[in-house]
Amino acid sequence: MKKFVYMFAEGNASMRELLGGKGANLAEMTGLGLPVPNGFTVSTEACIAYYDHGRKISDEIQAEVFEYLHKLEAATGKTLGDKNNPLLVSVRSGARASMPGMMDTVLNLGLNNEVVEGLAKLTNNRRFAFDAYRRFIMMFSDVVMEVHKDEFEALMDKAKAAKGVTEDTELDADDLEKVAQASLARYKEIKGEDFPQDPKMQLIEAVEAVFRSWNNPRAIYYRQMHNIPASWGTAVNVQEMVFGNMGEDSGSGVAFSRNPATGENKVYGEFLINAQGEDVVAGVRTPINLEEMKTWNVDIYNQFSDIAKRLEKHYGDMQDLEFTIERSKLFILQTRNGKRTAQAAMRVAVEMVEEGMVSKERALQQIDPRSLDALLHPMFDEAALKKAKPVAKGLPASPGAASGEIVFSAEEARLAKEAGKKVILVRLETSAEDIEGMNLSEGILTARGGMTSHAAVVARGMGKCCVSGCADLTIDEAAGKAYLKDLALNKGDVISIDGTTGQVYAGAIPSVEAHITGYFSTVLNWANETRQMNVRANADTPKDAAKALELGAGGIGLVRTEHMFFEKDRIFEFRQMILAKNEEERRAALAKILPIQRGDFEGIFRAMQGLPVTIRLLDPPLHEFLPHEENEMKELADAMGISLDEIKRVVHGLAEANPMLGMRGCRLAVVFPEIAEMQVEAIISAALNVQKEGIKVYPEIMVPLISVDKELEYLRKIITDKADQLIKEAGQDLHYLVGTMIEIPRAALTSDEIAQHADFFSYGTNDLTQMGYGLSRDDAGRVLDTYYQKGIFENDPTAILDQKGVGRLVKISSQEAREVKPEIHLGICGEHGGEPSSIHLCHDLNFDYVSCSPYRVPIAILAAAQAQIEKPRDYVSVDFREHGRHRIEG
Amino acid sequence: MKKFVYMFAEGNASMRELLGGKGANLAEMTGLGLPVPNGFTVSTEACIAYYDHGRKISDEIQAEVFEYLHKLEAATGKTLGDKNNPLLVSVRSGARASMPGMMDTVLNLGLNNEVVEGLAKLTNNRRFAFDAYRRFIMMFSDVVMEVHKDEFEALMDKAKAAKGVTEDTELDADDLEKVAQASLARYKEIKGEDFPQDPKMQLIEAVEAVFRSWNNPRAIYYRQMHNIPASWGTAVNVQEMVFGNMGEDSGSGVAFSRNPATGENKVYGEFLINAQGEDVVAGVRTPINLEEMKTWNVDIYNQFSDIAKRLEKHYGDMQDLEFTIERSKLFILQTRNGKRTAQAAMRVAVEMVEEGMVSKERALQQIDPRSLDALLHPMFDEAALKKAKPVAKGLPASPGAASGEIVFSAEEARLAKEAGKKVILVRLETSAEDIEGMNLSEGILTARGGMTSHAAVVARGMGKCCVSGCADLTIDEAAGKAYLKDLALNKGDVISIDGTTGQVYAGAIPSVEAHITGYFSTVLNWANETRQMNVRANADTPKDAAKALELGAGGIGLVRTEHMFFEKDRIFEFRQMILAKNEEERRAALAKILPIQRGDFEGIFRAMQGLPVTIRLLDPPLHEFLPHEENEMKELADAMGISLDEIKRVVHGLAEANPMLGMRGCRLAVVFPEIAEMQVEAIISAALNVQKEGIKVYPEIMVPLISVDKELEYLRKIITDKADQLIKEAGQDLHYLVGTMIEIPRAALTSDEIAQHADFFSYGTNDLTQMGYGLSRDDAGRVLDTYYQKGIFENDPTAILDQKGVGRLVKISSQEAREVKPEIHLGICGEHGGEPSSIHLCHDLNFDYVSCSPYRVPIAILAAAQAQIEKPRDYVSVDFREHGRHRIEG
Repeated sequence: MKKFVYMFAEGNASMRELLGGKGANLAEMTGLGLPVPNGFTVSTEACIAYYDHGRKISDEIQAEVFEYLHKLEAATGKTLGDKNNPLLVSVRSGARASMPGMMDTVLNLGLNNEVVEGLAKLTNNRRFAFDAYRRFIMMFSDVVMEVHKDEFEALMDKAKAAKGVTEDTELDADDLEKVAQASLARYKEIKGEDFPQDPKMQLIEAVEAVFRSWNNPRAIYYRQMHNIPASWGTAVNVQEMVFGNMGEDSGSGVAFSRNPATGENKVYGEFLINAQGEDVVAGVRTPINLEEMKTWNVDIYNQFSDIAKRLEKHYGDMQDLEFTIERSKLFILQTRNGKRTAQAAMRVAVEMVEEGMVSKERALQQIDPRSLDALLHPMFDEAALKKAKPVAKGLPASPGAASGEIVFSAEEARLAKEAGKKVILVRLETSAEDIEGMNLSEGILTARGGMTSHAAVVARGMGKCCVSGCADLTIDEAAGKAYLKDLALNKGDVISIDGTTGQVYAGAIPSVEAHITGYFSTVLNWANETRQMNVRANADTPKDAAKALELGAGGIGLVRTEHMFFEKDRIFEFRQMILAKNEEERRAALAKILPIQRGDFEGIFRAMQGLPVTIRLLDPPLHEFLPHEENEMKELADAMGISLDEIKRVVHGLAEANPMLGMRGCRLAVVFPEIAEMQVEAIISAALNVQKEGIKVYPEIMVPLISVDKELEYLRKIITDKADQLIKEAGQDLHYLVGTMIEIPRAALTSDEIAQHADFFSYGTNDLTQMGYGLSRDDAGRVLDTYYQKGIFENDPTAILDQKGVGRLVKISSQEAREVKPEIHLGICGEHGGEPSSIHLCHDLNFDYVSCSPYRVPIAILAAAQAQIEKPRDYVSVDFREHGRHRIEG
Repeated sequence: MKKFVYMFAEGNASMRELLGGKGANLAEMTGLGLPVPNGFTVSTEACIAYYDHGRKISDEIQAEVFEYLHKLEAATGKTLGDKNNPLLVSVRSGARASMPGMMDTVLNLGLNNEVVEGLAKLTNNRRFAFDAYRRFIMMFSDVVMEVHKDEFEALMDKAKAAKGVTEDTELDADDLEKVAQASLARYKEIKGEDFPQDPKMQLIEAVEAVFRSWNNPRAIYYRQMHNIPASWGTAVNVQEMVFGNMGEDSGSGVAFSRNPATGENKVYGEFLINAQGEDVVAGVRTPINLEEMKTWNVDIYNQFSDIAKRLEKHYGDMQDLEFTIERSKLFILQTRNGKRTAQAAMRVAVEMVEEGMVSKERALQQIDPRSLDALLHPMFDEAALKKAKPVAKGLPASPGAASGEIVFSAEEARLAKEAGKKVILVRLETSAEDIEGMNLSEGILTARGGMTSHAAVVARGMGKCCVSGCADLTIDEAAGKAYLKDLALNKGDVISIDGTTGQVYAGAIPSVEAHITGYFSTVLNWANETRQMNVRANADTPKDAAKALELGAGGIGLVRTEHMFFEKDRIFEFRQMILAKNEEERRAALAKILPIQRGDFEGIFRAMQGLPVTIRLLDPPLHEFLPHEENEMKELADAMGISLDEIKRVVHGLAEANPMLGMRGCRLAVVFPEIAEMQVEAIISAALNVQKEGIKVYPEIMVPLISVDKELEYLRKIITDKADQLIKEAGQDLHYLVGTMIEIPRAALTSDEIAQHADFFSYGTNDLTQMGYGLSRDDAGRVLDTYYQKGIFENDPTAILDQKGVGRLVKISSQEAREVKPEIHLGICGEHGGEPSSIHLCHDLNFDYVSCSPYRVPIAILAAAQAQIEKPRDYVSVDFREHGRHRIEG
């Protein structure tokens, strides 16, 4: 029979897929002899079985859980439900990948009307026992029985009000016993039955509830954001309770083996005396610094520091630990690789290598490429910052700087975002319900909670700046007002927050771009030396090109020439071209555009200093360039000296039922070869001009939207005829390439034919995905919303490349192209070019480069290095062979 | 060295690819010892080389042509350019597939100022010699030198006017000598140089001109229409001239070994005394019936009849021959398998099998499935016909009946067609320039030309009805008038023509559907027994279903449920459903639609009498169902009691940038499962009701636009839950299937996953092609026009399945689906389901069925049989195994 349950002593860290991250690490620590409360893990396979069996735990698995419960009872010498010597357990989720706070937990399980009395006797602490019981009733009802915890919190508030006190701690044993009894009564009132008194049924129900919580909306949203498959499921850990709330000699805390914000090599954390773990994480009371533990109990501090460093060395990575001290005895409840800011990740990586703790490769692998995004966020302009006066200060919870209008809820954030506004989410504290709102905001400001509060952890994961625990902040949500000390602020007022310093400012502060320095530069240069695949950038202007180069780009993989035409001073010439009645008129209009394009290309070539530049010929439907409002059309008509009706006729005539599947891309060039000729002339003559200045230029001319080899054969001749003539006239050497985007499914499927006419392929995975799915990004909104809800899509395939379907097209195409033309250059210029999992595919397929937006270049460089470390390949990018590796300046 | 030229004696009929059809058959007849004038063939490979070498004949090939010219001179004892004993040759095109009249021909080549004198002496016929010379000057100038023949015909007209005569025959030798001299002078005037006098250069130039004509616009158009690849090229046949115009003992003719209109087993043809072959084909003089040849020269008649029958037997197919009699000696100039009407094809096939000449399989293979279309055309209603009085009569050149407005040119036909009108093209005679216009017309009426004239041959090929040689017709094109005897008709007046009888009527005559009887029925039943793949029909109404059954359909492969909603009395309910504000309102509106849909399905199930019926769930975007004109919107708003603004808001809200890639197909069902539930209820309850009447029903529920397996998993559950509940409630047995269309590239690429949830796949190759090419049919117009012109597309991939790209998706999908689920049913329901080459692919991939429009069912049945004959397969359609083969009633 298949085994679904494991004692901690049976497992180890390598069993993460089966036991989840938390379970595997509890097992590992148990094996290392660390002080871990005993327990067992119900595996992820049991969760999968639960869903496969119509959301029911089968009798077999239930029996196996009870068998292991029995083993746990034997090991602890306590018995679940025994009023004389009761075992109390926690029931916690633990998926393969960490999903902090997304799923449900039940603590103090095993209590009932009898056991609570036994616990009171046993601990000689009646207040503690009834506090635990009323907490358990609330938690179990909320998590397992779908009775909202507010129902029970109201009873606590009532008790405090009746006694005229404000703090929970001011209630005594009798008060809490009454609250517990009132809770049981309220439960019966709502559910029509007694609160479950059988501890074994409590256990099974709790395990089921955790399985169920794998598919709650916030877990689904988190999985989408982090690309975690729904099929993994979660494990459940059942562990003997230890109590940090048994008095002043007890406490709970969360700590890191190094500073997660800066990376400094020093144990860093927070704890609360006389509190359970969730009090720390929930941010209800602001915790004290771990340093202060020394004055409280230096032995415990030393014991904990040693364990933290031992685990860091054991795992070869910075650890994030949860611990509880029960009556001066330390227990470790969890360890995992610690989430950290991108800055910290850089420092930790570099210092661990310097300390000889890990190899460069291992250090690179431990950095989440997506987290680098935070390092590339803007900072406040220093001059402006000097003049700005902070109005409040909180904890520097997640670095970066942001200004935006105040919003008080996720919903307000969504509405403001849709209206095109930038917002700062301002909350007393955040919880899992706020995730989407946090993602839509520029930054998060909270009144409560520490560096390890929900707001701080989630913001760091998102690369959003966050100031947490800002005691100067009060919120009057009903009135729609926030106060920073005495300063009253309304929804919509602008504030600025600095997540690196914790300062909060009224009004907007201009911000400046980030640059690559210090540890970051070291890490990127390691990655640079490691990877075999080049990273280029998509850039349309000399300014973007310069930024891309600074951030490490080894070339430009996509210049979209049409963006140049949308600028106000050029659109008129371009519209004249579109409105031309015949080739002659069109050529006359194109002649006016030529010098403008040439100037654009000269700027980009100069910026790129001898690195290759891929320029795509005109791509969008001409309709996009024409005015669509009557007054704009009138203006154009007057300027061109033609009638409004004439303009309307042309605009109407160019409209298409499905413009994405219409007259655009290379189809424009086939129908109007003179447009392509002008663009080729602009590219080649710009290259010749810049070469005269002593800068080598490697232009690559890219034809978009090829579906049939003959299109490219036809256009290649037009391009090379024009280019060769210009080069010959100039009497210079100029090496240029002609290639195509592969962005239409048929092109991918006939790449052996198309490759005959192409020096390079660049995969346009945006269009390839849209056509491959038959789903246009512009029209997908309502479909995607429903599909996420119903679990049909786990993430947006336009953001994360679908490897099974669209990726298969890329694979078929690239392999068949290389078969007929081994020397063909392969790259990708869709948005997936900056997405790590897609970059791994490109690496595996021996691509020469990925190309992405300039700000994603460092991410792509790191991902490419990780791909090489994971699956080394022999093939070295032709870009490196011909142009060397572009060094990143620190 | 590669050989590019072949004497007729070197070749045979199997060398069609190399020598073209004409060259291969001339070689074959030479081998059989038939009287064929000697000659040689420049191969199709020389044509390909010509295009590969920048449209030049290389020196090597030129030398080889002269080498073979020398051999021809040796064999004939005559010399090209020798004024004492001159060799004159014809230079004719001859592609692998017959393309009658599409490419160029030069006759009488070898004449110049000296040779013409020699010819006059040698033939003792000065008039003949100069007539030949002036014809040659005209033809060579027109075909080779780009001087239009009108220039020279004007000179003939001038000569006749000067002499006061009207017929060419009334000009004597001196007159024609003067015309020849005037022609030479006119040539020099236009070209600025003398008419080429070197016969060898004439020859090379003429060969080049024929190669060039492979890519003239009408040849390109013809190739598109007949799916002939541009890469084939044409061969050129250089053959000693024989002269049918050497007096009253000479003549030229065209004849068939059986009657090409009826199929009767009797030599049938036409000839002209004292004429060259092109006079017969061009239809300038109306020829006399072959029967009359008996009275002219019975020996020649018998000799010809014997040869015709001998060749028919030799080739095992009806032959189409060209012959010339020079001074009482018969020469065969060409033989090929004869084009015939579809009626004739049926009779010929059946009778040849009965005669034991060919096997059933061979007979089936000799029928072009596309030609059956003509048999399925409407005929005039007999009652109406009896009342109608013919106003004129011509030759019954191509069967079928049609009414339409008169147009006088291809251009007028195009304009009228674009305006949605039906037209009859009325011409003095047609030529290659008219092909497109003919294709756009319902039928063709000509004043001149016989059964083998251009109009007749081309119309039969197209399956268009045609009345040719209507001597009662005169046309005053300048005035835009036609006269049928005395009846004056203007452009736009309606006439009716019957291509089966040759009758012409004024005004419109209602027509009736064709039915399958006689030879046609025999042929179809042979095909029926032969094929292993079923043919179903796409039908949306009980009427269509009944017609499909009559035409041989063995089931319905596609019922488009949305077409039912567009009907005037239903659209209101459907719009209410769309405008519903919530699920409750939507369900209320759906409840009103349910009985209407159920009724539709009951009708179709009854019509299909126990054969399977595939019903597709709602497919198009909801936007399509809403009114878009303000007054219509107002009407709807009033009827629904809501504001116009509200309607506008909804219409605007549902508009999509690319509706083809938007919210449609299964996406509708996922977002609004209640729509799918209603449709499933209508299908299943209709099936249960009809089964109660004693008719077995096999409903197949088809989900459109699947791109991800989970969509189908989700919807399959909704469908089967509803269906199983209804079946259980009814207490009946009902076997139903749930499957999906494969019409999105990703679905094709992930078919192993999707097949897990599907009982059948039906390939929607319309959408698959549009998404595979990234080209929407609605927007492709201008692109396709240019692509044909520039040789990028040879035909419309939405009409003929692109086997390389889109076909590869079908292949990958069907093979991978069968790997994981061998019992899955496979079919196709795109328009390609009725296209022979696509049907062959489906056969090869072991499809269970193809589904096409009812009128294409017989075509598909024949094509499926041909596929089985060509590449026999063991796999028998599940439809045949479960439902038997539906017999076609004769």
